[in-house]
Amino acid sequence: MTINIKFYGYIATSLDGYIARPNGKLDWLNDAAPKDSKEDYGYRNFMASVDCVLMGRASFEKVASFPEWPYKDKRVFVLSRTMKDAPKDLEEYQIDFFSGAVERLAVELQTLGMRNVYVDGGITLQSFIRAEMLDEIIVTQIPVLIGKGLELFSDFQKDIKLELISSQSFDSGFVQSRYRFVAEKGRYFDE
Amino acid sequence: MTINIKFYGYIATSLDGYIARPNGKLDWLNDAAPKDSKEDYGYRNFMASVDCVLMGRASFEKVASFPEWPYKDKRVFVLSRTMKDAPKDLEEYQIDFFSGAVERLAVELQTLGMRNVYVDGGITLQSFIRAEMLDEIIVTQIPVLIGKGLELFSDFQKDIKLELISSQSFDSGFVQSRYRFVAEKGRYFDE
Repeated sequence: MTINIKFYGYIATSLDGYIARPNGKLDWLNDAAPKDSKEDYGYRNFMASVDCVLMGRASFEKVASFPEWPYKDKRVFVLSRTMKDAPKDLEEYQIDFFSGAVERLAVELQTLGMRNVYVDGGITLQSFIRAEMLDEIIVTQIPVLIGKGLELFSDFQKDIKLELISSQSFDSGFVQSRYRFVAEKGRYFDE
Repeated sequence: MTINIKFYGYIATSLDGYIARPNGKLDWLNDAAPKDSKEDYGYRNFMASVDCVLMGRASFEKVASFPEWPYKDKRVFVLSRTMKDAPKDLEEYQIDFFSGAVERLAVELQTLGMRNVYVDGGITLQSFIRAEMLDEIIVTQIPVLIGKGLELFSDFQKDIKLELISSQSFDSGFVQSRYRFVAEKGRYFDE
């Protein structure tokens, strides 16, 4: 069976590479995005290009606490060793839980007809990079240094080369760059 | 006395924010820059815009070990508590040593007629940011993750906001962004 699913990341970081403060807060990101801006930083187009969203349990619980479920039109897959069902108030949406290794998940997703998967959340992104399964990542850099926090990239054991697909800047000072992981899946680390 | 010197950084980092491997090596940077490229990433223009180069002792010793001294037309100031003289083979060039605090150095440089100063080296850049004295930084991001090393930005105690001046990408996949530190000198940290 050939796996031909593509996994995409779309995430914002501070200029010093953090996706959240040590306590998980995103106030620096919300403060930096102009309130009256029409710029959506390509998010709508990106979401239109994926079939489903994949996230870890921590991200799921955060999103589940929002007043409104943001993924009404998308299937959502949650990686969790313990959770098996969505909370009652989200029962009407398509949310599935998965507890296995990411390689098996890829097979599962393909069987379900998924082709383009949005991998959300820093920890999940890191585990996909480590498993050499992430295909592309869109990083939006916010012009602020926050000094400490949760890193997007951390401590890979080998170099990972990327190819820049495109880069653009916005009036807000955000710089968004889209990268492709260069090598074939399962072997993009340098030997 | 009003200090009206401007301090500029110009530096390359890996996409995960490192300026060198833990052992100081830059092989990942040299490997990423196409050998036959005419792109100089604005370095020549940048150098033409500064009066002098300021660096720490470690950077100085590295540069001094090169076959040829690269700063023939520029005054060079080296921050060092111990070194007072340039090695004999560099005696013909304008190299001065300074051991005081960066604030006093600014006064000294102004007295010497300097206006635009290139602050080189990660440690020295960090100390200028900490002292809230850096005016602008040009960061060139190389499309590779190296996993660990010397960080460009590390552990500031408060948020530091920046303003994007410009951003451009190159065929090599390098993304170069120029930022201005927003607030007045000596108080650009958020309260």
